[in-house]
Amino acid sequence: MEQSFLAWLRGRQRLLPQVAVGIGDDAAVIDWPQSRQLVTSVDTIVDGVDFLLDQHSPAAIGHKALAVNLSDLAAMAADPVAALVAISLPNENATQVAAAVYEGILATAADFGVAISGGDITCYDGPLAISITIIGQAEPQKSWLRSGAQPDDAVLVSGSLGGSILQKHLAFTPRVRLAQQLRDNFTINAAIDISDGLLLDLDRLCAASGCGIELELDRVPVSEDAQALSQQDGGDPLEHALGDGEDYELILTCPADQAAEILAADLGTPLTQIGTLTSRTGLWSKLPNKLIRLSPRGFVHGG
Amino acid sequence: MEQSFLAWLRGRQRLLPQVAVGIGDDAAVIDWPQSRQLVTSVDTIVDGVDFLLDQHSPAAIGHKALAVNLSDLAAMAADPVAALVAISLPNENATQVAAAVYEGILATAADFGVAISGGDITCYDGPLAISITIIGQAEPQKSWLRSGAQPDDAVLVSGSLGGSILQKHLAFTPRVRLAQQLRDNFTINAAIDISDGLLLDLDRLCAASGCGIELELDRVPVSEDAQALSQQDGGDPLEHALGDGEDYELILTCPADQAAEILAADLGTPLTQIGTLTSRTGLWSKLPNKLIRLSPRGFVHGG
Repeated sequence: MEQSFLAWLRGRQRLLPQVAVGIGDDAAVIDWPQSRQLVTSVDTIVDGVDFLLDQHSPAAIGHKALAVNLSDLAAMAADPVAALVAISLPNENATQVAAAVYEGILATAADFGVAISGGDITCYDGPLAISITIIGQAEPQKSWLRSGAQPDDAVLVSGSLGGSILQKHLAFTPRVRLAQQLRDNFTINAAIDISDGLLLDLDRLCAASGCGIELELDRVPVSEDAQALSQQDGGDPLEHALGDGEDYELILTCPADQAAEILAADLGTPLTQIGTLTSRTGLWSKLPNKLIRLSPRGFVHGG
Repeated sequence: MEQSFLAWLRGRQRLLPQVAVGIGDDAAVIDWPQSRQLVTSVDTIVDGVDFLLDQHSPAAIGHKALAVNLSDLAAMAADPVAALVAISLPNENATQVAAAVYEGILATAADFGVAISGGDITCYDGPLAISITIIGQAEPQKSWLRSGAQPDDAVLVSGSLGGSILQKHLAFTPRVRLAQQLRDNFTINAAIDISDGLLLDLDRLCAASGCGIELELDRVPVSEDAQALSQQDGGDPLEHALGDGEDYELILTCPADQAAEILAADLGTPLTQIGTLTSRTGLWSKLPNKLIRLSPRGFVHGG
């Protein structure tokens, strides 16, 4: 099946200027821009863990497989270049499932100018699993790291948080364009995307930077889906916003003056300041007269 | 498990000069050499299809997972730079299996100067599957393609062929160094690695180049394992050399004068001329007084 499928994929592939040799040889060849670093990451999504093939559309699953990787590039402020797709397929209806998943991958690849530069298809006795390696490029020393945050940095978050499991985890927009705008016009000291939950990913950023954070919990942007989920489960919408995984929004830290300019700019994506970094480590809820320590919690992928 | 595993991997990772930011952020950052194209490919190996976890050592399986990808780079004459590893693990003994597989991956990565620049680990209800994306670099327009062969080119093959299933498929040396020596010192017009069988991969190279081949079957280097396998199954050793998959040797085509020089040189790896390309398409066995048409056959991976 793989040979005929790769021929189909070759026909579907848009010609992108960076592709010197596309799918069909032993490897693809990509023209690399002068004086750029390569930024790369890999993520796998699996039926029963990250999606449900019997409930979700294969195109949405394909979108998610690529979008989670694009979200990693956004968190580095890198520009997407190419993706390599490895799909492991249950033997049943393998060709139909593969084609439908690829429709979602190809549409999102087209949206972000990503060349599909490798494809491996394996049929096996296991669940649908899609592993994508994303390749991006960035100016040297310009990538946003988790470790670049400074005490007194403002902490911003994009979009609104929580309840992603209701729909957003399959249909989110990776914040690539937002990251490009911020990178090109402002100073960002550190970034991470929210894959495992706001508090858990904030804790990772703080740990990498040797900082802590004073959070203003009443400023955390709670999504409508966090509200809806709380109606269903009787929980607190804020708890969903703090702990739910798969928001795929960006946490950004920057000097206070930059934050003021960013929040005054119209970037097409809501940004909210949720707190300030401190030299005292840990996650702290800042109340009028005291600080309360928060424990990092959330959903850890991959067990 | 993933977080602690990645921390372990970070500690095991050799510091390679090309790695600006290693595993542990949203993505890795790699310094890219000036004026080089990127060459990339992805291959997955799965328990029950490409290896047997209950019979083969996890380190050998890890070696194979990386080596099949390095073989693709060798077939393009590209230099290895980095690899990203996605492992899907059966829930049982997941940590032990992952660590043992990684021992094999890391040893082979060290042999070839490859930086492990991404790692994803998923535990699931399915067989062990290892998907590796390899990233290499090459001078612009210097990569060997399947499509570059010319009529009258000599056709060379490295090593000896057939019976790989007995042991070689888990323990082969990808022909990266041979390819580098040939690229730096000789003119090679086209190349492909033998993953699915000599005749099948020859047919692909010929089809991509619009050529045919006159094969001298008595010159095909038949491996000792092809002989051994024939003793077991009563078959013809030559048939194993022509059709068995997973030799991971290189098929190379070059002008006749280059072939003479290459065959006279000491490159540390045996090379044999097995035929000559023709403008007449198809695979032909060249006998003293006639040509007999051969059908491409072999083992097609991925069903």
